Amino acid sequence: MMRLTYLLPAPMHATELGETEMRRRAGLLAEWSPPGTEITVSAVSRGPVSIESAYEDYLSIPAMADQACASVDAGADAIVVGCFGDPGLDGLRELVRRPVIGPSAAAMSLAASLGHQFSVVTVVEGVRPLLRRLAWEAGLSDALGVIRAVELPVIDLNRDHERAFSVLRGECERVLAETDTDTLVLGCMSMGFLGAAERLTEELGVPVVNPVRAAVHQADTLHRMGLAHSPRAYRTPAKLRQGTNRADLIRTTDAPLEVTP
Amino acid sequence: MMRLTYLLPAPMHATELGETEMRRRAGLLAEWSPPGTEITVSAVSRGPVSIESAYEDYLSIPAMADQACASVDAGADAIVVGCFGDPGLDGLRELVRRPVIGPSAAAMSLAASLGHQFSVVTVVEGVRPLLRRLAWEAGLSDALGVIRAVELPVIDLNRDHERAFSVLRGECERVLAETDTDTLVLGCMSMGFLGAAERLTEELGVPVVNPVRAAVHQADTLHRMGLAHSPRAYRTPAKLRQGTNRADLIRTTDAPLEVTP
Amino acid sequence: MMRLTYLLPAPMHATELGETEMRRRAGLLAEWSPPGTEITVSAVSRGPVSIESAYEDYLSIPAMADQACASVDAGADAIVVGCFGDPGLDGLRELVRRPVIGPSAAAMSLAASLGHQFSVVTVVEGVRPLLRRLAWEAGLSDALGVIRAVELPVIDLNRDHERAFSVLRGECERVLAETDTDTLVLGCMSMGFLGAAERLTEELGVPVVNPVRAAVHQADTLHRMGLAHSPRAYRTPAKLRQGTNRADLIRTTDAPLEVTP
Amino acid sequence: MMRLTYLLPAPMHATELGETEMRRRAGLLAEWSPPGTEITVSAVSRGPVSIESAYEDYLSIPAMADQACASVDAGADAIVVGCFGDPGLDGLRELVRRPVIGPSAAAMSLAASLGHQFSVVTVVEGVRPLLRRLAWEAGLSDALGVIRAVELPVIDLNRDHERAFSVLRGECERVLAETDTDTLVLGCMSMGFLGAAERLTEELGVPVVNPVRAAVHQADTLHRMGLAHSPRAYRTPAKLRQGTNRADLIRTTDAPLEVTP
Amino acid sequence: MMRLTYLLPAPMHATELGETEMRRRAGLLAEWSPPGTEITVSAVSRGPVSIESAYEDYLSIPAMADQACASVDAGADAIVVGCFGDPGLDGLRELVRRPVIGPSAAAMSLAASLGHQFSVVTVVEGVRPLLRRLAWEAGLSDALGVIRAVELPVIDLNRDHERAFSVLRGECERVLAETDTDTLVLGCMSMGFLGAAERLTEELGVPVVNPVRAAVHQADTLHRMGLAHSPRAYRTPAKLRQGTNRADLIRTTDAPLEVTP
Amino acid sequence: MMRLTYLLPAPMHATELGETEMRRRAGLLAEWSPPGTEITVSAVSRGPVSIESAYEDYLSIPAMADQACASVDAGADAIVVGCFGDPGLDGLRELVRRPVIGPSAAAMSLAASLGHQFSVVTVVEGVRPLLRRLAWEAGLSDALGVIRAVELPVIDLNRDHERAFSVLRGECERVLAETDTDTLVLGCMSMGFLGAAERLTEELGVPVVNPVRAAVHQADTLHRMGLAHSPRAYRTPAKLRQGTNRADLIRTTDAPLEVTP
Repeated sequence: MMRLTYLLPAPMHATELGETEMRRRAGLLAEWSPPGTEITVSAVSRGPVSIESAYEDYLSIPAMADQACASVDAGADAIVVGCFGDPGLDGLRELVRRPVIGPSAAAMSLAASLGHQFSVVTVVEGVRPLLRRLAWEAGLSDALGVIRAVELPVIDLNRDHERAFSVLRGECERVLAETDTDTLVLGCMSMGFLGAAERLTEELGVPVVNPVRAAVHQADTLHRMGLAHSPRAYRTPAKLRQGTNRADLIRTTDAPLEVTP
Repeated sequence: MMRLTYLLPAPMHATELGETEMRRRAGLLAEWSPPGTEITVSAVSRGPVSIESAYEDYLSIPAMADQACASVDAGADAIVVGCFGDPGLDGLRELVRRPVIGPSAAAMSLAASLGHQFSVVTVVEGVRPLLRRLAWEAGLSDALGVIRAVELPVIDLNRDHERAFSVLRGECERVLAETDTDTLVLGCMSMGFLGAAERLTEELGVPVVNPVRAAVHQADTLHRMGLAHSPRAYRTPAKLRQGTNRADLIRTTDAPLEVTP
Repeated sequence: MMRLTYLLPAPMHATELGETEMRRRAGLLAEWSPPGTEITVSAVSRGPVSIESAYEDYLSIPAMADQACASVDAGADAIVVGCFGDPGLDGLRELVRRPVIGPSAAAMSLAASLGHQFSVVTVVEGVRPLLRRLAWEAGLSDALGVIRAVELPVIDLNRDHERAFSVLRGECERVLAETDTDTLVLGCMSMGFLGAAERLTEELGVPVVNPVRAAVHQADTLHRMGLAHSPRAYRTPAKLRQGTNRADLIRTTDAPLEVTP
Repeated sequence: MMRLTYLLPAPMHATELGETEMRRRAGLLAEWSPPGTEITVSAVSRGPVSIESAYEDYLSIPAMADQACASVDAGADAIVVGCFGDPGLDGLRELVRRPVIGPSAAAMSLAASLGHQFSVVTVVEGVRPLLRRLAWEAGLSDALGVIRAVELPVIDLNRDHERAFSVLRGECERVLAETDTDTLVLGCMSMGFLGAAERLTEELGVPVVNPVRAAVHQADTLHRMGLAHSPRAYRTPAKLRQGTNRADLIRTTDAPLEVTP
Repeated sequence: MMRLTYLLPAPMHATELGETEMRRRAGLLAEWSPPGTEITVSAVSRGPVSIESAYEDYLSIPAMADQACASVDAGADAIVVGCFGDPGLDGLRELVRRPVIGPSAAAMSLAASLGHQFSVVTVVEGVRPLLRRLAWEAGLSDALGVIRAVELPVIDLNRDHERAFSVLRGECERVLAETDTDTLVLGCMSMGFLGAAERLTEELGVPVVNPVRAAVHQADTLHRMGLAHSPRAYRTPAKLRQGTNRADLIRTTDAPLEVTP
Repeated sequence: MMRLTYLLPAPMHATELGETEMRRRAGLLAEWSPPGTEITVSAVSRGPVSIESAYEDYLSIPAMADQACASVDAGADAIVVGCFGDPGLDGLRELVRRPVIGPSAAAMSLAASLGHQFSVVTVVEGVRPLLRRLAWEAGLSDALGVIRAVELPVIDLNRDHERAFSVLRGECERVLAETDTDTLVLGCMSMGFLGAAERLTEELGVPVVNPVRAAVHQADTLHRMGLAHSPRAYRTPAKLRQGTNRADLIRTTDAPLEVTP
């Protein structure tokens, strides 16, 4: 039995998608999980509406870290970061000794095992450098073909699923026609919850990896094998090791201060 | 439900390990698999006694290919190659449209996702170049630290488990002391069936990946996600596409022929 | 004339170092700057006490982003991030169209131009993976030798300068003895403000780069050349381009929400 | 004086090409060899009709290994593997302490020495991943441009030489027009025996390497220099070192065995 | 105060550009330098008319080395090599213990710090391999996109500035349209003295680095920081260390000699 | 029949080694060449006494280029550069359309084909960066292990052969003990003419490549195959293509000129 927290970096319950979408996602996660998985979809109280830039990626981390720690304290066995940008993955792993899965790393890693070159199709141009870095962090730069963006804001993607699918499929076909790519990764969790990967795998004749499912299965694999990320790679911050409370890592004053020589 | 064939490259029933060891392994595989997995351990009728060189690796492939095709014809949902050298992985994938898992690729890929640098501890010096190539094939050269051999022939390893464990542990400790390795992979299936990875994870404080379990879980992940390796990466051989029987790919004559100008 | 903001990621005025240290640093920055530079040292109102892990690195970004925008609105010509981890560099560059300098990138880049292989000596083990990533982001993985940590917390380093120098020098000597390193980088801003690089350059006979000064000169170079980071590399977040206020990128609710299927 | 065995992986005497083509090839090899070379073209008794996939590549190895050992026992000074896929090269080198030349490695290595970027034009799509791996094994990934296939099965290529040449030339021209390639390699031994490389070198104005001749000359170079592949790179299999007969490496039983837990 | 020698590899005073162009360049260098820089433009007495091949690059080195040593003896604090091919940079650095700046290395290094991928637009096809090597020497291969040549001989470029600019701009636009390049480098000093980089930065909306200015500022940075290239990377030639005069490194006889066995 | 010029970068007839050593080398070259090779050892009239730094490497190029052109005009079929630093290789190849062989590239390329990792043992520390660059230029960075120097000046090496051999052997043994190197290259032509490689191959049990012989055989291979380096990689300098005499590429004036703004 695995208690899995799917951690949303945004307060989705305070956006137009709302709790309804959270429940829909929880349902899909349950459907996609191996038997014996208890799914919780958890949304932070404070964070970016959606993540389409490095800046928004960073904005999401402090609240996610709090929530990840709370989840583990409450008994979660594993955490999946609910954003393809894997925001704060190394930071979260420093805090928590349960598997913390970045869907980007999980999906790229699975894709690399299915062929010789994988490519990523994502939503907005602005995250391409970020995704290239994630491929490097996963040790997979050599297996990465191209990263393409369909320029479909996450919000729109959630509004008109059929149009999103069609735009996505067009870009996937272009990638296959123009490069040696043999395996595709959908570079956005909302794409994953569209069920697009499954349809594309069928229609394009090459494996198209759904990052949501790749992440869930990596969590399950690690949980069953009794493994988590290495403490030598993600060390507990020195101050925490020495007994400081996590809350005391941060200091707040009334105002910034500017001095000149 | 997944019917998983664990395909031994050697006729283990014709070695001193025999059917007993095959049953022991089947038991462990069942214990380590997610619920709903049906395990078959399948040994070829002809193959090398053990694989400790590139030459023996190649010797195992023809019979494994026959067996893999037979397994799939008989309903197998996925195949795990029962050797850490991943012998013939690309060849098998050209023949079979079900997930064929190489434990080396699966274990290295899992290890890479747990830290920044993984290293492999294996049994014999002679397979080190082979394993380096497998890391490259998995797109993971950048994440690979070192490959070390304990010079413990596979046969001996199966004879004295406790001594094997102790030698293994010594080498793992040296790797951790001398390199930036944060995650280890046991580079031999017999090591996997020793249960050594689980003890070492506990005793060394870093994740030590059991390739047997990594392979089984990758098979499960792909099966549940409805994915298999890409047909663009592993094409069905042209002659088979054109209708030739697999048996007719090979031609046999009475004797070799030598000609001079 | 360049108005340069040196942006501290920590509310230094609320730590034991206090405003005094801020003034001392402002003085050194002025001394080290080309004529015509107006230095402001600016500390955020909220942030980590010091940065010795990825988690603390991320904690510092939101307030730094606010402060960077405020500085530029108030007329700053360039910003130097006051931490060798270059926290949030890509995020800040998405927000601000003036040069934003990461001292790590600036120092590594300068070091690479002085020889064939540079190495970094930094303060704590926990930031080594982060620094390796920064070298990659700077496109300099090939020129990087080793990253070594002296395990001297930033706080201690600021308390006993002479001992810090001696520990530092020992590690630098070891790197030169054991590797092909020809150029060194001090991997910590507090080390830079020690004046250690200058003494080590003298005593060791190889260039030792002070990241504080490398950053200030890169700011000056870009300012004089009329250049800043590329908007194609660091795109303005889509929502900001479409008119959303930066403050509205983030949404706050009363509490997190957890749902189950 | 060098006795050189050109080792065909297929029983060519049992195909439509037959002994006649073997003699034609022996004649060309003699013509292309330095004075004092004694050529033997040797065909195995059992093997794939032609090699157009990884699977067929593997099928050819066991019989080639037997033949290679027999050749050396009979006095051969060097062996050229008669297939551009270099099947089993590392395995053969483990068995034989005379130069064993892979034409792919020999041709790529020669091509790399003639310019900055070489590309390969081969016959079938299916072997492209294999050739990319061979470039990596030769340490030449960085110098490799593209690998292109003309989709001309080996058999057809041997039937209509003029058409084959024309298709080949067209693809070579495209590679030169579309990439920075400065040197070409023909990626198929049958192409080599067409004399196509020599005509293309003339007509295209860039060096086009004939893998047959590159291999013969590498054998000659090593033989004259008294060198062979390194025993540290290609170790004699441990069991052979300990006195096992090569024939006893393999074990045969009546039938496969399948067990369940 | 920095005395900076800009060292021309050609006897420009003996070409159609003449002393007038040398003065024009001196003026621009002064204008572009930080306050307190004393510029000298120094032309050798013997060298190639212009450098458009590796051969001409090499021809320029002996006289430049003499001149560089003379400049430093006469009090120069830093030297900028006046050619984008950085001719003899490592050789000059072996002789002189003041900063010797290669504009190619300086410009590429600055460009890499402004984005994720930079590309170079240069004058003649023949220097592209040379520039690729310089990127590698600067440790920046990974950050380099493409190198494109406009096939505009240096002499013509100096004759019709407006046409040169227009051709240049066209190529820059093509690079931006066809690749992920985010930052450009002008790969020729004459282009730099055209003022083209400044106009292109304005018109194309991405940073375009002028190698002249990048080099001057790197010299200034190093001079102010009290740094020069590492003596471990660029060792004083052994014979000079042992007291041989530089002039005696070379030996001259009446005529070549040819012997046969 | 091949007329081969072995081109000495130094006026050896004007050094203490003199014409005698030139004849000795010619004899060895003849002995080591395939039948039908006509050897000429050709020494320039002006050049460095020996090459132990990048600066001396550059000093040798202008006279070598003259001599190479003269040799080819006089009927040479191929040229071997007589220095392991491959001085001016790309420049010479721009001038001459016959094979020009760099012994470093030839030896490294041969070494790479004999195993998985080769290392170089050379004479002086100062040329190590140069050799690393040559490995890169040969496309072989990935296959290169370490470069070690025995700090034995070329002159001393020629004076006491036995001591040189013993020092050399010691370093080779250290490399084999400390690294995964499986093949060695002697990084100096004088070492090659010592016959050291042959003895070391025998005594160390791994292939040790003599760069002299590797170069001669590469020349022979290219000559027999009718190949030379690619004109797309090494373009004839534009001015020469347009009819300028080679002598007119260089311009000489009475004196350098220095101007200030």
